[in-house]
Amino acid sequence: MEDTLIDNLSIDCVIFGFDNEELKILCIKRNTEPDFGMMALPGGFVYLQEDLDKAPARRLKDLTGLTNVYMKEVGTFGNVNRYPLRRVITIAYYALIKISDYVIHAGEDAQEATWIPVKQVPQMVFDHNKILEAALTKLRERVRMEPIGFNLLPEKFTITELQTLYEQILDTKFDKRNFRKKLAKMNLLIDTNEKQQNVSHRAAKLYRFDKKVYESLIKKGFVFDL
Amino acid sequence: MEDTLIDNLSIDCVIFGFDNEELKILCIKRNTEPDFGMMALPGGFVYLQEDLDKAPARRLKDLTGLTNVYMKEVGTFGNVNRYPLRRVITIAYYALIKISDYVIHAGEDAQEATWIPVKQVPQMVFDHNKILEAALTKLRERVRMEPIGFNLLPEKFTITELQTLYEQILDTKFDKRNFRKKLAKMNLLIDTNEKQQNVSHRAAKLYRFDKKVYESLIKKGFVFDL
Repeated sequence: MEDTLIDNLSIDCVIFGFDNEELKILCIKRNTEPDFGMMALPGGFVYLQEDLDKAPARRLKDLTGLTNVYMKEVGTFGNVNRYPLRRVITIAYYALIKISDYVIHAGEDAQEATWIPVKQVPQMVFDHNKILEAALTKLRERVRMEPIGFNLLPEKFTITELQTLYEQILDTKFDKRNFRKKLAKMNLLIDTNEKQQNVSHRAAKLYRFDKKVYESLIKKGFVFDL
Repeated sequence: MEDTLIDNLSIDCVIFGFDNEELKILCIKRNTEPDFGMMALPGGFVYLQEDLDKAPARRLKDLTGLTNVYMKEVGTFGNVNRYPLRRVITIAYYALIKISDYVIHAGEDAQEATWIPVKQVPQMVFDHNKILEAALTKLRERVRMEPIGFNLLPEKFTITELQTLYEQILDTKFDKRNFRKKLAKMNLLIDTNEKQQNVSHRAAKLYRFDKKVYESLIKKGFVFDL
């Protein structure tokens, strides 16, 4: 059955990734009007016969090749003049992924798909910078309530990598000793008894994340107080 | 200037209120098709020239007479068949108010506007019961992170009223002594040195809420651990 796009209703995706140094988002370069050639969040219109929550995964795949990404809603953006050609309301979603787990490639509807450090994101189309800000606010709220940062790290990681991640998300600097002390109190990390390999500096210890402790903390409610 | 309604885009409002005994929501009885005469959340379509976030206040006023209610987004509901006549996506909002602060009256577009205890809400139109569930989930999440319950209580309240409110929101029972002990630890309450008046039982002490302590807790992040 042929389906048609609903021309006043779109979705957009803010995909956060971490490469152990910087927090990044996935951007595309548009190859359609309006704003051909400009950077944008991956997104697009919803089909008439498509449940709304299926649209983000479809567009993400078409534009960037990414699949199997679990997305949560950021919110709805519906100012009258947010889209230049007509009234369009967009629903924004976000996700956190490990960059190294995925291969991205520009799909048919994009000139490019690329990871850009959050701090270096250029002016994007429409209100996409505002959508990014709202997604960052959600991420910062959530990171205090759940150790979601772990979604962005490899299975085994160093404390320095974890600290860098939280510094990047919260846009701040932590004192190294204090950070380690607070982490230790939470009992969330398990020492793997392994060390980094093939590094030029002194190899650091590798940790993993204790899911059982995490789940019991989530149930009780807790603040990731860094 | 004449404006037209966007016929595939609506908003709905979940207005939570508390009357010191029960958690309630504001419902209307529809006087339009489809589902004329059925109970529903207050809601309606968005105008083409209206910013999305202005629509909930307008509809709430038109349907129930309520004004000056600060609403937050619950999320978007966009399953293909959620509305019987055509494809309509709705954005849901919620708010917490003190029932005694407001007078409600059915507006032109409603047969009735009435407070219904959350536990006695009947089958409503479309997916409105699902929207209520989602709003309740948001409320329960938020109540653990912020003492938002205070929005629902009169300025001076008894500990029993506070306990009843949290029991209603979280759909649980607390041990009275334990509840008082945990509350005391948070330092959030100020003894007004006043007592209830005109009650048939022994008058209980009245408390108010310490906004300074609350704000510093919010800044640090905390869990309202009841």
